[in-house]
Amino acid sequence: MQIILLSGGSGTRLWPLSNDSRSKQFLRLLPKENSEERESMLQRVVRQIREANLNSPITIATSITQYDAITSQIGEEVDIVTEPERRNTFPAICLACEFLSKVKKCADDEVVVVMPCDPFTDRGYFSTISKIGKYVSENLANLIFMGIHPTYPSSKYGYIIPSTKLEQDTFSVRKFIEKPNTTEAEKLISNGALWNGGVFGFKLGYLTQIARKYVESESFDEIRNRYNGYPKISFDYEVAEKASSTAVTEFNGKWYDLGTWNTLVEELKTNTFGNITTDGKGKNTHIINELDIPLMCIGTSNLVIAASPDGILITEKNLSENIKEYADKLKRRPMYEERRWGTYKVMDLSEYPDGFFAMTRLLKIKAGTTISYTDINSRKITLNFIDGQGEIQKEDTTMPIQRGLTISIPKNLSHSIKASTDLSVVEVITGSDIYDLGIPDILFM
Amino acid sequence: MQIILLSGGSGTRLWPLSNDSRSKQFLRLLPKENSEERESMLQRVVRQIREANLNSPITIATSITQYDAITSQIGEEVDIVTEPERRNTFPAICLACEFLSKVKKCADDEVVVVMPCDPFTDRGYFSTISKIGKYVSENLANLIFMGIHPTYPSSKYGYIIPSTKLEQDTFSVRKFIEKPNTTEAEKLISNGALWNGGVFGFKLGYLTQIARKYVESESFDEIRNRYNGYPKISFDYEVAEKASSTAVTEFNGKWYDLGTWNTLVEELKTNTFGNITTDGKGKNTHIINELDIPLMCIGTSNLVIAASPDGILITEKNLSENIKEYADKLKRRPMYEERRWGTYKVMDLSEYPDGFFAMTRLLKIKAGTTISYTDINSRKITLNFIDGQGEIQKEDTTMPIQRGLTISIPKNLSHSIKASTDLSVVEVITGSDIYDLGIPDILFM
Repeated sequence: MQIILLSGGSGTRLWPLSNDSRSKQFLRLLPKENSEERESMLQRVVRQIREANLNSPITIATSITQYDAITSQIGEEVDIVTEPERRNTFPAICLACEFLSKVKKCADDEVVVVMPCDPFTDRGYFSTISKIGKYVSENLANLIFMGIHPTYPSSKYGYIIPSTKLEQDTFSVRKFIEKPNTTEAEKLISNGALWNGGVFGFKLGYLTQIARKYVESESFDEIRNRYNGYPKISFDYEVAEKASSTAVTEFNGKWYDLGTWNTLVEELKTNTFGNITTDGKGKNTHIINELDIPLMCIGTSNLVIAASPDGILITEKNLSENIKEYADKLKRRPMYEERRWGTYKVMDLSEYPDGFFAMTRLLKIKAGTTISYTDINSRKITLNFIDGQGEIQKEDTTMPIQRGLTISIPKNLSHSIKASTDLSVVEVITGSDIYDLGIPDILFM
Repeated sequence: MQIILLSGGSGTRLWPLSNDSRSKQFLRLLPKENSEERESMLQRVVRQIREANLNSPITIATSITQYDAITSQIGEEVDIVTEPERRNTFPAICLACEFLSKVKKCADDEVVVVMPCDPFTDRGYFSTISKIGKYVSENLANLIFMGIHPTYPSSKYGYIIPSTKLEQDTFSVRKFIEKPNTTEAEKLISNGALWNGGVFGFKLGYLTQIARKYVESESFDEIRNRYNGYPKISFDYEVAEKASSTAVTEFNGKWYDLGTWNTLVEELKTNTFGNITTDGKGKNTHIINELDIPLMCIGTSNLVIAASPDGILITEKNLSENIKEYADKLKRRPMYEERRWGTYKVMDLSEYPDGFFAMTRLLKIKAGTTISYTDINSRKITLNFIDGQGEIQKEDTTMPIQRGLTISIPKNLSHSIKASTDLSVVEVITGSDIYDLGIPDILFM
């Protein structure tokens, strides 16, 4: 069995911790059982898959902007397929399936289970996934969904209406219902409808047959290059609702969507993270401070407070679902990112009316990594090394890095930096071409 | 008449906006009448003295750490006398009076009124000051205090018990009472006691006669050098309580101590300052954001929220008097300061176990000022000029400043920077002698 993990979204519901490159699944906030460590939703689901002994290789379908964060968080133990552009779930799943077929040479009857990377679940969820895989391999249906037992009449999820029983916990599907309103949801639930949790299994050939109606080639690279040949449509619309043989396997365990602050903080076990001072009189207040400066909270009830280089949030807990509307308007370049080589934080970004800009970042470069400054056209970069060891290479010369060393990189000259221990660097970029900075991949190879 | 304004205190009751160098009287938060501008308590009191046509020269008695902020806020229109060390109000007033006597050559019968710079008052307050001056010149008493009509039984103030009537609103003093508890305060008020607001007038010779029991010299500089010859004691203990001829002039107008967040925010007129997004549903919530990053507030009631480079505060309004206890424990070097030449903000301060440190600051240098880096022993300084024009001088050579210019100043070499327009500079300091940085005066002349 192959698992495709969908890692999408650049949601602003967890602003200011989530940003354009740091989706909610990358926040290292969740407590690990029997450990002081914290892990992200992505790290948690990969660990859970391993612990459930599914023994299935994982392929992550994502966008290019998430490649660095995924590599940094779970290393080399998964394959990553990146979409050249965001097009919706159907194209993303097609591309990942073609990767399994053309690059990993999986057979057409290989069982594939697709799942999101962000629900907060327990072991039973992975047993159900295992069961879906088994039913697919036994041809119980072409397409088998997981149906989550609803706990309230949500208008945020799609619903699946089961029909004839096929196995003890599996039914054929009568109908898929898109997000209903709350009244409709109540009615659906009283009639036995289940939430569509975005988990489904099929045989690889079943999906590639549909995919190849749009894009067909022997070469995966060519398929990827022709990615805009797939229609911008969801998997549910393009595949599930048209399918003639669909089933749903019921799951009745722990399943939370930690997509908003009020739901996320309930799973954090502790009420405070980071440099925080309180008078101990706060009631039901959760505080996360990712900034270096102290945060003090005196009294207060039922709040979520979160501070990061992207901003500061103070919200009543029961209103925290509303922040998206306001956070979307605050969108600007991420002020913090996790990259393959480490992390950076923007400390100052000054933009002037004539187009000139200056950006000062604190870079934390991980030992063993190498980064290169290339293709610097209209920018000047000054690096102030403040901690760690390594070397800097410029054309044919190599120089050791030491504390207090300052290097200015003139335009059109390439440098590479090799970190032998963790490096801290204050980088000042000035120039007149800020818009290139939206894609810092150009700067770091 | 001469006015001595006492500018003291490095209180933490308005943390994180106030810090060791930025006392509450320097916060530019107060609305100016008929203007969009904001002013500090110090700027307000100096403006009010001018508007009341007191026509009295002002001498500010303060500590060396406040010299830059005072000069930056009210320019050259006042004299500033700095204590070489903090010793309490009696020595500070002695030094200021000796300055009036020896440097400004005031006569012994010159009337002097001493007042604090931080109460929030209206015009009647200054009329009362004028009246105190008149009564002193008429020898109604040697020492005449302002007695504030109490509005509640405060345990934060000293009380003055009036006795025989001398003029319509002026009485001889029966007794000074130090801060009482609330029950005692209630009793005092019912017996006609007044608050001691720290405003008092006397003839210059009256005070210098007392001062010269401790330090006497013809030279003001020598008096200042022998400042530790004055006892560490308050004016009330050393002078007022021992005086044989004291009076109190009643003041029954607006007089607020804006020393805590709950009292200050009531005078701000608007509920938000700075980069703030709200859903408009907050009730009785005041937000001040001095950081560049956005602050979002959704819902919430009865809070004060304040963010600065020194930290972030979220407090229930009625508990805001309690923050001092916690803020005192958070004390570290100021992360923001107003200086003669402009302002700076610390963006990163990294300290390592072996004593090495790196500090990155954003300097805003005002047009027309010159600053010098001198006496740099164990530090290396890199300046990244990001906006503005001027020139940098190093020994005999002069170089124009331009955007994108990077200058490293090696140890033991002096540089001076002359700003012809406002300059923005990212400065990176590395070295092994962080403790010197507590007095950035060494760096900037």
